[in-house]
Amino acid sequence: MQTALCTVFVQHTSASLVIQENADPAVRRDLARWMADLAPESRHWEHDDEGPDDMPAHARSALTRTSEVIPVVDGRLALGTWQGLYLWEHRARPQLRRLVVHVQGE
Amino acid sequence: MQTALCTVFVQHTSASLVIQENADPAVRRDLARWMADLAPESRHWEHDDEGPDDMPAHARSALTRTSEVIPVVDGRLALGTWQGLYLWEHRARPQLRRLVVHVQGE
Amino acid sequence: MQTALCTVFVQHTSASLVIQENADPAVRRDLARWMADLAPESRHWEHDDEGPDDMPAHARSALTRTSEVIPVVDGRLALGTWQGLYLWEHRARPQLRRLVVHVQGE
Repeated sequence: MQTALCTVFVQHTSASLVIQENADPAVRRDLARWMADLAPESRHWEHDDEGPDDMPAHARSALTRTSEVIPVVDGRLALGTWQGLYLWEHRARPQLRRLVVHVQGE
Repeated sequence: MQTALCTVFVQHTSASLVIQENADPAVRRDLARWMADLAPESRHWEHDDEGPDDMPAHARSALTRTSEVIPVVDGRLALGTWQGLYLWEHRARPQLRRLVVHVQGE
Repeated sequence: MQTALCTVFVQHTSASLVIQENADPAVRRDLARWMADLAPESRHWEHDDEGPDDMPAHARSALTRTSEVIPVVDGRLALGTWQGLYLWEHRARPQLRRLVVHVQGE
């Protein structure tokens, strides 16, 4: 497809998507530390069925994105030079995650 | 439609959309209390025409989503097992809210 | 096009999009001051290659949107009465920014 719309959708509420700087890994470390302060494990959360990282993961997902929508131009994703699409795992331990990718166009 | 893209769009700037856990209502209570701390009524806001909950509602909307985009696969919204789509009312009193739902596909 | 989907995509990770109140400019001033407190320059950020406003700009972008998706109904963007689409510059100095606008429909 040459001109289209690409949608990436994450089927979870404790992991999310962001488009962020794809060059310096320090950006992702800074984002992780800062997000950990915005929605800290140390806060009293009512919902903690799966442990202290359960509800912070939902909160961090609510602040970021369940889907990202990226135009396709001349057969390529129209990302800027410094943009990368990241799946952001918000739980403390690794999880199996499912994404749906939908592309519609010509 | 079997394969499509469903867009839900909220026509307001003091209510928003989130896809969140659809099982335990404590998740929504935790999110509401935490968001109330992130954008508190007690902060000095310049814009307060409609009362102390006016500007916090705009701020909370800015952090969440005006639209959610969900792929349709095999004729069904491709939501994960634990995902539900919520309209998040950020004003203190009930409001009449308008949504636009757009589905494009085959 | 009469019925369509309009996607606006910003090709940067230090500027973002929001749909917000289009009437009182105080709303935008409040949002800017509040966001400056959520992701402050005064925090210790590891990534500061381009100065103290570098990493706060990435963080503020992560909290808002890289794309906005707006349905087109009867040939017009289906924005609510009080909604305006804004490009939010998060760097301290003016920057040249590139947007991609994609419209698909009939």
